[in-house]
Amino acid sequence: MNSTKRTAIFPGSFDPFTIGHMSILEQAMPLFDEIIIAIGVNSAKKDFFPLDRRIQHITSLFTDTPKISVDTYTSLTIEYCKKRKAQFILRGLRNTTDFQFEKSIAQMNSKLLPEIETIFLVTPPEFGHVSSTIIRDLISYGTDVSEFIPGKI
Amino acid sequence: MNSTKRTAIFPGSFDPFTIGHMSILEQAMPLFDEIIIAIGVNSAKKDFFPLDRRIQHITSLFTDTPKISVDTYTSLTIEYCKKRKAQFILRGLRNTTDFQFEKSIAQMNSKLLPEIETIFLVTPPEFGHVSSTIIRDLISYGTDVSEFIPGKI
Amino acid sequence: MNSTKRTAIFPGSFDPFTIGHMSILEQAMPLFDEIIIAIGVNSAKKDFFPLDRRIQHITSLFTDTPKISVDTYTSLTIEYCKKRKAQFILRGLRNTTDFQFEKSIAQMNSKLLPEIETIFLVTPPEFGHVSSTIIRDLISYGTDVSEFIPGKI
Amino acid sequence: MNSTKRTAIFPGSFDPFTIGHMSILEQAMPLFDEIIIAIGVNSAKKDFFPLDRRIQHITSLFTDTPKISVDTYTSLTIEYCKKRKAQFILRGLRNTTDFQFEKSIAQMNSKLLPEIETIFLVTPPEFGHVSSTIIRDLISYGTDVSEFIPGKI
Amino acid sequence: MNSTKRTAIFPGSFDPFTIGHMSILEQAMPLFDEIIIAIGVNSAKKDFFPLDRRIQHITSLFTDTPKISVDTYTSLTIEYCKKRKAQFILRGLRNTTDFQFEKSIAQMNSKLLPEIETIFLVTPPEFGHVSSTIIRDLISYGTDVSEFIPGKI
Amino acid sequence: MNSTKRTAIFPGSFDPFTIGHMSILEQAMPLFDEIIIAIGVNSAKKDFFPLDRRIQHITSLFTDTPKISVDTYTSLTIEYCKKRKAQFILRGLRNTTDFQFEKSIAQMNSKLLPEIETIFLVTPPEFGHVSSTIIRDLISYGTDVSEFIPGKI
Repeated sequence: MNSTKRTAIFPGSFDPFTIGHMSILEQAMPLFDEIIIAIGVNSAKKDFFPLDRRIQHITSLFTDTPKISVDTYTSLTIEYCKKRKAQFILRGLRNTTDFQFEKSIAQMNSKLLPEIETIFLVTPPEFGHVSSTIIRDLISYGTDVSEFIPGKI
Repeated sequence: MNSTKRTAIFPGSFDPFTIGHMSILEQAMPLFDEIIIAIGVNSAKKDFFPLDRRIQHITSLFTDTPKISVDTYTSLTIEYCKKRKAQFILRGLRNTTDFQFEKSIAQMNSKLLPEIETIFLVTPPEFGHVSSTIIRDLISYGTDVSEFIPGKI
Repeated sequence: MNSTKRTAIFPGSFDPFTIGHMSILEQAMPLFDEIIIAIGVNSAKKDFFPLDRRIQHITSLFTDTPKISVDTYTSLTIEYCKKRKAQFILRGLRNTTDFQFEKSIAQMNSKLLPEIETIFLVTPPEFGHVSSTIIRDLISYGTDVSEFIPGKI
Repeated sequence: MNSTKRTAIFPGSFDPFTIGHMSILEQAMPLFDEIIIAIGVNSAKKDFFPLDRRIQHITSLFTDTPKISVDTYTSLTIEYCKKRKAQFILRGLRNTTDFQFEKSIAQMNSKLLPEIETIFLVTPPEFGHVSSTIIRDLISYGTDVSEFIPGKI
Repeated sequence: MNSTKRTAIFPGSFDPFTIGHMSILEQAMPLFDEIIIAIGVNSAKKDFFPLDRRIQHITSLFTDTPKISVDTYTSLTIEYCKKRKAQFILRGLRNTTDFQFEKSIAQMNSKLLPEIETIFLVTPPEFGHVSSTIIRDLISYGTDVSEFIPGKI
Repeated sequence: MNSTKRTAIFPGSFDPFTIGHMSILEQAMPLFDEIIIAIGVNSAKKDFFPLDRRIQHITSLFTDTPKISVDTYTSLTIEYCKKRKAQFILRGLRNTTDFQFEKSIAQMNSKLLPEIETIFLVTPPEFGHVSSTIIRDLISYGTDVSEFIPGKI
């Protein structure tokens, strides 16, 4: 129908990738022809799960989904978009704190590279309380968090 | 590239259609193959601009944009989506008040009709203060609001 | 253990009573010895469901729960608390809009009658999008909303 | 009247314990048979006041209140609740930032241990600006903060 | 010192004028040479207290304060500012709901008349829960609200 | 007209000073007789731009504006106000996150030193997404940020 391939970057640290992230991806599937899960690598930030393990985990979830691939990047997100010829950045929103933060980033990215558009999807209500930060905290206390993480990390 | 036509509904009362609405549409253009600006007609709500004038105004803005059409509907938004075979609802977000309200509606729509996804775009910062409500108020005091309305209503 | 009976008022218009209200009550059950679901009757506000039908619906849900009763009131909420010798007002919170509104009311009630305390519980994530307002809107369009209403209204 | 003892944990770092904390406790007194002020000890977080001094300070405030005791814990909060046979977690809310943060934690705790309920009370308006963070900052500049701290730390 | 007289409009419906309004005025006194309390008269909005009584009440509070006067206006606020040669609009902020609403109005006024600046002051914490809306509601139930209203209305 | 000089402190770390800060100052110019841009020096916080360079940058922007001066301070902000005989603290607000944070600080400062008033101005919509934090992040990735910084840093 349309001749332009629609490619989105789904950027994040995914430390770890949660059922919340999974849900946003499932909601976004019909919207894009290709989605690149892009793990931002920031040497100044301390990892909880090693990068290798995160790549392996996320990749294992989408082996049967040719539309979705996993990659890492170290540049500014919009630079990575340019490199990958992605016109869209995909982000999930859980609450007003998320929204306030994401709004400024999206507006700034639009000013710096007008051809990039940030697309927001709202997390389903039942996952609104799931965050990588809380999950890391639970793991550090030895809590079983498998119900919040798809597949096996 | 992809064989499925991506159709979005952009629902609202558009009383009147503003530069904020225009900006959301421009941002959404690359994302969809077809966008239907759907004016919700609610007999319980009192109009400021008559429906005919709103249809005429919005239609006049997109005569050279085949991808965009204008329609009216009286049913529930998701029922109208089904009727028009639209998989997506497009909404703009200006601030946390918008977000809080839109989030519940989007989550409810998802529960009622899971194949419909609501796509959110953030209004550019320079239009964050523009709302149909404030514009109606300004007009009622005789203020010139032409800078906030695209084309001529 | 303690000699004082702890009685809470759960005030609202419950037009209609939803699975969100039900969930707040279930969460509050261990906290109180008696909970009075108090339907505020406000002649200035137009009802959607007639008062009789709301009383009948809510009563039918708690016939086997001696701790919970249903009543109506027309006075200020804190006056009704005094009359019923209830020391607590129970309220559910879904989001920041709820919180902002409820906070001022609770603080005002505390100033007017310091022996009354408002107790807040957070709605479970999966019901965060359910509101009587949205449900009334859905019903007015003929949508089946039975999944959001406990029992049969 | 009721045969079950209602025990609440009031968790926090209380670094230092403020008039805001005191007010929440006073409001919560009629609601519970026992309240355990539980100082969370987190080796990863740097203390401002040494733990010993915080225990001593808080204990000194409640020597005549048999219902309230002071303890420390190093585990996940819900694990500590289980150990102490507490069914309730007590938290104070000052503003929407507090609420947003506390909501996710409470919902997560409910998922992990459904028999635990988090009870929220709103801080009285006159203490809405008091926070341990601001008080620590004031102390570090040599400001007299005795009006914001009950008793003597 | 400076040769320009600084005049502010303090617009509102003041239905009724509360201790919150009074506090904002006291905080603003050192900032301006003249403050005009401007009661907006909107024929579409139903009054609770008649206009005459509101004028009388507010005037009685400032008979010994030559800097403060009371007036009514029916035009757009910025038009009234022009007429009165006021460069500033004074507004109080209690919470994020106030802020979100006032922000858009202030930004719109700035676009329409750049020489007008809106000045915001934060209500003291102890009055954060006081609003004319809640007070009207209390009065309609026969509650004594004299502690929330300065002087005698 | 009035005999009292109105002096405001505009405190911040200004790391770096942005077009958002510039806009707040321009809006505040008619309100005050003197504005001191006060760079808070906090040994515990790591600078991005060295203090000298920030002083030089900001000073260079106001060489022709006698009303505005640049200074540094290491004490509590209200202590610095006392020392400089400033009655006002000037702050800009972009969004609800800013507001929530600033509100508590302003209320606390008012309690500690009642003769100091914090004056808030709202950032123009077109600069609502500009923050020193985002700009520092962009610079660290080698992005050209000159459009967000007035003059030359």
